[in-house]
Amino acid sequence: MGEFDLIKTYFTRPVRRTVLGIGDDCAVLQLAPGMQLATSTDMLVEVRHFFPSVSPALLGHKALAVNLSDLAACGAKPLAFTLALALPFVNENFLEEFSKGLFHLADEYECELIGGDTTCGPLNLCITVFGEVPQGQALLRSGAQVNDDIYVSGPLGDACLALEVLQGQISMPPNHLEAIRPALEQPQARVRLGLALRGLAHSAIDLSDGLMGDLTHILCESRVGARVNVDAIPRSTVLKTQRIAQQRKYILAGGDDYELLFTAPRETRQAVQDLAQTEGLQISRIGEIIATSEPGTLHLHDHLGDTLALPWRAFDHFTHQHPA
Amino acid sequence: MGEFDLIKTYFTRPVRRTVLGIGDDCAVLQLAPGMQLATSTDMLVEVRHFFPSVSPALLGHKALAVNLSDLAACGAKPLAFTLALALPFVNENFLEEFSKGLFHLADEYECELIGGDTTCGPLNLCITVFGEVPQGQALLRSGAQVNDDIYVSGPLGDACLALEVLQGQISMPPNHLEAIRPALEQPQARVRLGLALRGLAHSAIDLSDGLMGDLTHILCESRVGARVNVDAIPRSTVLKTQRIAQQRKYILAGGDDYELLFTAPRETRQAVQDLAQTEGLQISRIGEIIATSEPGTLHLHDHLGDTLALPWRAFDHFTHQHPA
Repeated sequence: MGEFDLIKTYFTRPVRRTVLGIGDDCAVLQLAPGMQLATSTDMLVEVRHFFPSVSPALLGHKALAVNLSDLAACGAKPLAFTLALALPFVNENFLEEFSKGLFHLADEYECELIGGDTTCGPLNLCITVFGEVPQGQALLRSGAQVNDDIYVSGPLGDACLALEVLQGQISMPPNHLEAIRPALEQPQARVRLGLALRGLAHSAIDLSDGLMGDLTHILCESRVGARVNVDAIPRSTVLKTQRIAQQRKYILAGGDDYELLFTAPRETRQAVQDLAQTEGLQISRIGEIIATSEPGTLHLHDHLGDTLALPWRAFDHFTHQHPA
Repeated sequence: MGEFDLIKTYFTRPVRRTVLGIGDDCAVLQLAPGMQLATSTDMLVEVRHFFPSVSPALLGHKALAVNLSDLAACGAKPLAFTLALALPFVNENFLEEFSKGLFHLADEYECELIGGDTTCGPLNLCITVFGEVPQGQALLRSGAQVNDDIYVSGPLGDACLALEVLQGQISMPPNHLEAIRPALEQPQARVRLGLALRGLAHSAIDLSDGLMGDLTHILCESRVGARVNVDAIPRSTVLKTQRIAQQRKYILAGGDDYELLFTAPRETRQAVQDLAQTEGLQISRIGEIIATSEPGTLHLHDHLGDTLALPWRAFDHFTHQHPA
């Protein structure tokens, strides 16, 4: 099977909302009046971001999910995506399963595959995603204001914990691993939450490199500081079986969570709580934005108010050795 | 140097025309009223698409040029691009030269780098490019009409010839190689030509996989056939030193040309000629579109009108072993 047959068999579907999809030099998108285009790119590399043994369907899901998560963090509605795929050889089983996982998630958000590239090379998946957001309403990292509450969705840390179990660094009962493994292999992009946060949140970011590092991006971009109650950061019952110091490492510096971190003014507390209920999501208030002469300052404390000094830093793709 | 410093040092520049550039979850683009977004993605893999020894500046140029070429083929004006980059390690010399070559070309077209991704892995460059085109005016592969003339820009075949010399498959005097090497390593995307062809050409495609294969895409999409005078296809003086059978192989099936192939109605011959003069480009009329009951039919003949049967097919990334 050659390149064109591969694209035709596994990746070409009738265009629904796009002006022009796969099969020409470019795809063509029409934005509705008053809309801006939000776009983001993520590249996944074998070993670095996923195990060679991972199910191709889950890989297809995750490759798109991590990109949708960026749209969610901007409050953008998914429209379309392109996929560039380097494969060592044409593995039809892989392609069939991969495309199933990919399209299953894409269909959930009516997000169309409109183009891309396939080539021969070490396994590499690069997705660029396109969304639309009403003019001037994108949620930014730079919008946090002093006295904002800080929130996160979902329990954090499970993805990193599952990874370390799969790598053999720590062990746990099989049923515990099965409970947290979807956090690593099948993350749920918080697209609906991101859309609902437009006009409500002052700032937002998706958690891909660990809460400490990602919150620091908001603080630096917004020229503010933060005080966070580490014990208020939500964690799963499985994670709670770990020692407290370990729990804190996973929730603060684990990475690969793909939950949303956002800040919102105090007067919207009820609205945020209502939103959590409507969406059936766990949303936790974990701290507040403070004024500071040193933007990026992050004070961590426990539920007793005692200051915590924590040594972990954000995940970095060139200095760490784990998937994210 | 970590991921964030790397991006800041080599790939972050002040945003000029984009609403939001590097440094948030998404980039945000605003299209002018009446404009549609044209987008395309190309992935370049080491060994497959370029020699490990290639100058990083030339690689930066080429990675963007092959993407701009897709915009050109649609008649779209370049606006912005994202870059996803997998690197085995942080090589600052490489990054400095690579980003210079990349931005030099980007600046020529005022095309802004608005986002992307960097990660650790086998060298892989994935660029997604964004352009704008007035609503309904994108040049498509499906627009060719019976009796259209067929044109190509530039001499063809030099890139493939240079490649085979560098691979040691054939030899030639060093000054000959130097003359054709830029065709391989520093292709010029025909952006201005593409823009000028809006409203003039009926169909267009960029030549990346060889004229025969790429013309066949137009014929199939437009449900027509073509008659092409192979001797009318332009070639360089260096290519002309090769045997005639070899010349034909390079110009018809060489790939990596990044020139435009387009069709236009006969009554625009003078306009196309004027355009060539204005743009200082070689534009050659090489045949015409014909009606056929078998879309995709391609009749090749020489300048005497004798039919040629040629065995070459389009370049395919999974069955051939050469850069394109």
